[in-house]
Amino acid sequence: MDNQQLLDLLGAMTLEAKVAQLIQLAAPFYEGADKGGQITGPLEAMGITEETVASSGSILGYAGAAGAIAVQKAHLQKNPHGIPLLFMADIVHGFKTIFPVPLAIGCSWDTELAEKSAEIAAREAAVSGVHVTFAPMVDLVRDPRWGRVMESTGEDPYLNSLFARAFVHGFQGKDLTKETERVAACVKHFAAYGASEAGRDYNTVDLSERQLREYYLPAYQAALEEGCEMVMTSFNTVDGIPASANEKLMRSLLREEWGFEGVLISDWGAVKELIPHGAAEDEREAAYRAIRAGVDIEMMTACYVHELPELVRSRRVDEGLIDEAVLRILQLKNKLGLFDNPYRGASPKRETEIVFSPEHRAAAYELAAKSTVLLKNEGVLPLNPDARVVLIGPFAQSGDLLGPWSWSGSTEDAVKLNDALTERLRGSLNIAEGCGIEEGTEEQLREALEAAASADVIVLALGEASEMSGEAGCRTDIRLPGIQLELTARIAEMGKPTAAVLFNGRPLDLHGVYDQVGAVVEAWFPGSEGGAAVADILIGAVNPSARLTMSFPYSVGQVPVYYNPFNTGRPKGAPDAQVRYVSQYLDAPNEPLLPFGFGLSYTTFDYDDLKLSSKKMTTDSPIVISVNVTNTGDRTGTETVQLYVRDIAGDVVRPVRELKSFVKLELAPGERGTAVFTLNEEQLRYHHSDLSFRSDPGQFEVFVGRSSRDTLNDFFRLV
Amino acid sequence: MDNQQLLDLLGAMTLEAKVAQLIQLAAPFYEGADKGGQITGPLEAMGITEETVASSGSILGYAGAAGAIAVQKAHLQKNPHGIPLLFMADIVHGFKTIFPVPLAIGCSWDTELAEKSAEIAAREAAVSGVHVTFAPMVDLVRDPRWGRVMESTGEDPYLNSLFARAFVHGFQGKDLTKETERVAACVKHFAAYGASEAGRDYNTVDLSERQLREYYLPAYQAALEEGCEMVMTSFNTVDGIPASANEKLMRSLLREEWGFEGVLISDWGAVKELIPHGAAEDEREAAYRAIRAGVDIEMMTACYVHELPELVRSRRVDEGLIDEAVLRILQLKNKLGLFDNPYRGASPKRETEIVFSPEHRAAAYELAAKSTVLLKNEGVLPLNPDARVVLIGPFAQSGDLLGPWSWSGSTEDAVKLNDALTERLRGSLNIAEGCGIEEGTEEQLREALEAAASADVIVLALGEASEMSGEAGCRTDIRLPGIQLELTARIAEMGKPTAAVLFNGRPLDLHGVYDQVGAVVEAWFPGSEGGAAVADILIGAVNPSARLTMSFPYSVGQVPVYYNPFNTGRPKGAPDAQVRYVSQYLDAPNEPLLPFGFGLSYTTFDYDDLKLSSKKMTTDSPIVISVNVTNTGDRTGTETVQLYVRDIAGDVVRPVRELKSFVKLELAPGERGTAVFTLNEEQLRYHHSDLSFRSDPGQFEVFVGRSSRDTLNDFFRLV
Repeated sequence: MDNQQLLDLLGAMTLEAKVAQLIQLAAPFYEGADKGGQITGPLEAMGITEETVASSGSILGYAGAAGAIAVQKAHLQKNPHGIPLLFMADIVHGFKTIFPVPLAIGCSWDTELAEKSAEIAAREAAVSGVHVTFAPMVDLVRDPRWGRVMESTGEDPYLNSLFARAFVHGFQGKDLTKETERVAACVKHFAAYGASEAGRDYNTVDLSERQLREYYLPAYQAALEEGCEMVMTSFNTVDGIPASANEKLMRSLLREEWGFEGVLISDWGAVKELIPHGAAEDEREAAYRAIRAGVDIEMMTACYVHELPELVRSRRVDEGLIDEAVLRILQLKNKLGLFDNPYRGASPKRETEIVFSPEHRAAAYELAAKSTVLLKNEGVLPLNPDARVVLIGPFAQSGDLLGPWSWSGSTEDAVKLNDALTERLRGSLNIAEGCGIEEGTEEQLREALEAAASADVIVLALGEASEMSGEAGCRTDIRLPGIQLELTARIAEMGKPTAAVLFNGRPLDLHGVYDQVGAVVEAWFPGSEGGAAVADILIGAVNPSARLTMSFPYSVGQVPVYYNPFNTGRPKGAPDAQVRYVSQYLDAPNEPLLPFGFGLSYTTFDYDDLKLSSKKMTTDSPIVISVNVTNTGDRTGTETVQLYVRDIAGDVVRPVRELKSFVKLELAPGERGTAVFTLNEEQLRYHHSDLSFRSDPGQFEVFVGRSSRDTLNDFFRLV
Repeated sequence: MDNQQLLDLLGAMTLEAKVAQLIQLAAPFYEGADKGGQITGPLEAMGITEETVASSGSILGYAGAAGAIAVQKAHLQKNPHGIPLLFMADIVHGFKTIFPVPLAIGCSWDTELAEKSAEIAAREAAVSGVHVTFAPMVDLVRDPRWGRVMESTGEDPYLNSLFARAFVHGFQGKDLTKETERVAACVKHFAAYGASEAGRDYNTVDLSERQLREYYLPAYQAALEEGCEMVMTSFNTVDGIPASANEKLMRSLLREEWGFEGVLISDWGAVKELIPHGAAEDEREAAYRAIRAGVDIEMMTACYVHELPELVRSRRVDEGLIDEAVLRILQLKNKLGLFDNPYRGASPKRETEIVFSPEHRAAAYELAAKSTVLLKNEGVLPLNPDARVVLIGPFAQSGDLLGPWSWSGSTEDAVKLNDALTERLRGSLNIAEGCGIEEGTEEQLREALEAAASADVIVLALGEASEMSGEAGCRTDIRLPGIQLELTARIAEMGKPTAAVLFNGRPLDLHGVYDQVGAVVEAWFPGSEGGAAVADILIGAVNPSARLTMSFPYSVGQVPVYYNPFNTGRPKGAPDAQVRYVSQYLDAPNEPLLPFGFGLSYTTFDYDDLKLSSKKMTTDSPIVISVNVTNTGDRTGTETVQLYVRDIAGDVVRPVRELKSFVKLELAPGERGTAVFTLNEEQLRYHHSDLSFRSDPGQFEVFVGRSSRDTLNDFFRLV
């Protein structure tokens, strides 16, 4: 249809039919969905009628080609205007082929693979009948207590922006209308959901507008610049107003300043949640505030359906607001081609062909291998394939490797670590559970110690169950559960070479692990091919190359701790610093245990000869920065060379380091490569005291190195 | 002098002499101070001349009547205009007679006693030659990791404001010119110093302007409304700009909006610290930004002296800015009568008469007794005076009871707990150290266990050394040190009635104490008479009446946790809340262990019959709220009846509870009293989305009870 046809359609709709387009309901409301027949209860609970469902605009959380076709068909028969449903679902890090969790993907520093993962997820979802995914999640994160850090690519706005673009492009491709095996992306959670106070999910967010714009907004904006079709509101308040009622955020910033013309959807129940938030006394006020803020779709509550017709009739809400919202939804349906083919990519045949295909699994394997971070290695890894190995721990034989938000994935399909190691090792492999995730018995412990007694090397497979992170999966204690620390301590007492492999969704306080064993591998939740990728890392078939994108704190008492804070007026370690009166803790370092950008390889890299093409930069003349990197070990490896900048003095204070660029160098043993960066004035801009975005002339420090902590440095002036 | 005379004096001064008025130097720079003769080194280190010292405006950290008179006399001989020095010092919770730390004073909920403590501190300081105290510190605090929470009265803006007024009035009296035994107050640290990120001192502060105005600013503003003569800048940034360079904060808000006409002083070194902050590249820029922001006095660095003359001569800085600053300083000197009597209250005779007098110590005793909070009591306390008591722990015989910022106080003068108990108990008292603060020996432990073996009841005296809190005294682990927890566990194993008395400067994570012993007494750092007051609490000669003004977290992983957060859209425990998808932690409660307003008595109080005079409030008709309180125990006791309000829905979200008022009722056993509150529309105002300060019509909930957690409730509407 062209836009006039959409407007004509809109003009033909009753107010009630229009408002019904604005509600999104879960699968049980629809005939033909697997759990059909459950309609009455949900309808009553929500206080809506079958007519509303028949006129509703979108369905949430349903996939499966045959079923999706059936649901759509049944819907079209009932819908008075023949308007097809939009099928939306949370396809976060894979559909059936599960990739590592996004925080792990971030650690790959590989945006091409990230894009590929999104493309594969999109294809599998699209042929299964999905039109829109609620991804990417691009919330900047600094607090590992928050369970959803696993859904983010980390703590850096620049890197998050790159991944945001990659994911959006991977999901949507170049042309959503033509490419029916792609899905529309919905960037979330707008805005600053990751800054929830005390790391408790859904909690209040309070930030200055400066912090919001400087750190939190860039990744959402990058996603939209990439053409992301939809935006989801966050659960939190922004400057005292819940996002779903926040006119300043949604109308002034998102729509007017950024020019976003796509569909804005509330997160699950977030419109009605304006009531407990204290931003509305009742559903009528909730509907009033949300529609005024510009929320087009209300997910899973019915304030709009209940109240908007009366609000329009009483002239508190202009019908034009409703029309705008409906038109945006119709336009998205049209862009997805649903008026021409309401089933779009849904195809039982294609489903069989591509979902969880060997090709897709190979991509998942590759990303898992490139996302696994070697955190410590004192000669324990890689394993000698002829060694007698014992694999101990709750993740030794676990399929719980997919992580939260792997909705259509099956843990039964996941390659387990014990199976993968069995295939790969030539020596003996003994396996013992040692303990469960949070509980264990003396018997389990005794068995593990016995199994370890005859081994040359011990591999501990430890971690958090997937439900210990993810949405509402927040913890105040971010150490491994006590029983696993006890197991680790008892194993460590044996004095044998020991490696710990960690499966978890957040940076942990590694006390009791890092100090106890000779090698630590952070595998995150590595996805369907997790066991295979980790096993190849362990035996050295893959040389680890991932780098952390979120700091591992020394302890939870240090949180938030991240690589790009401000310097303070009394920085610890300054040449003339006092002993006591500096910004420090009495009982812990200021720095995290493991910083942003950190990760080891089985080889080593030396850095030298940092060169700046000039000590002066002007608006027109960028400077070129180069450094030589030499592989000084005996294996080919890939180094991620990182460029950071510090603005020495600004109108407002500037971070001690900011990532500006990075390059990957694959180097053979003894090989020397050069990393070359071009840095220009635009990259030095920031939000000034008046929020203007520009650079300052003056002194800058430039850092190049293997992590945010370990760098060479030099200076230049912007004149 | 009249103002014209001051202007004439100003007009006669050279630019250099004027700028020198703006520097504040410590005692070693001045002839006649105890540490005279050390001048040369400091002068060279700071790059200033003896002429600058001779023209300097104020001296920091010197007291002692005879010496102060000598310093002033020597200075007047050198100063070309005969301008006397201002003597300033940190008299925070007492001069020689040390009162409990301010966080403890807060727990008294007794503003009259707080005022009296400030008056006594002022008198002792004034007769010792001090003119200005750097107090009160009124920074709102929510993070117990931060060492300076002990200097604040707590987490509530209303209560902090009451104490701010009390302290200012206590220090300054009604007429500073006439009352020469008072001192000028300097409210600090402007602004929001208590919100330093991750509880690390001097660290970045980032807040929305809404949070700043709603929570952090009221107490400073209250101090200024009370006539506080001076303001000190905070070390932190506010919206990206260090306070000492923050024009918006200092010029627009403090001077223009609030009309403050007094002297603004930087905190120690804070002007030069603009350089490490990254707000200035060098001293010239630091001086430029600070003088433009309106900082009158630069404490202990010399950016002004080095750079302002040239900045004026090069016309980057208008000399009028310097004149304004100097005039404010001269006006303060004049108000203090220094041009008539440059020695003001300094008097060796009065010093002997009043400093640490029995009358002053009695006031310190009273405030300590009223600041000590009974946190738990399962029949252990009060002690039977005939019982065989053993007193164990590092604070059993310690004089480290004064706490940080008790500069002129002497730990040797402090009444120790062992001495006070010895005087009061009729049965036997055995004493053992058990362990040190952070270390201990097996021998110490063994002795303690032996001593405990023959006792009827055990009193553990535990805590943090005073240097573990206070400025730069930040901790990531806020439990008691491990050795003390081990001692506690070993004692607890004995199964005898045991009370723990805690001496510390911050809310602690009480795991290992609260769950181990039958009674817990929070004595804070109780000051010079601390042992006496605590002993009287222990034996029941005083019935404890204090109430916490800062929450005791369940654990550090919960921080920040405070009584007046917002509700979120998914509050835990709501009637229709889901099991998982609510704002919660998987491993800990949302609530602190012990909430704001909590504290026990040796008697018990029942609440009933909450009455509202009307269910409707209008702008013109306040409502009267009353509740009956009955002493249901067998001792006379004082209950602090607390009134909280919640605005059910607002333009911006509102706290779940806000303290609006409180009354104290002293009730004999069986006696029934009535607490009566009047609540009006003005008390319901808050900062709206446009920052306008007004109320909203709508539903309000009112809570009356014994703490922020344990209340009766009802509703009314503002119409």
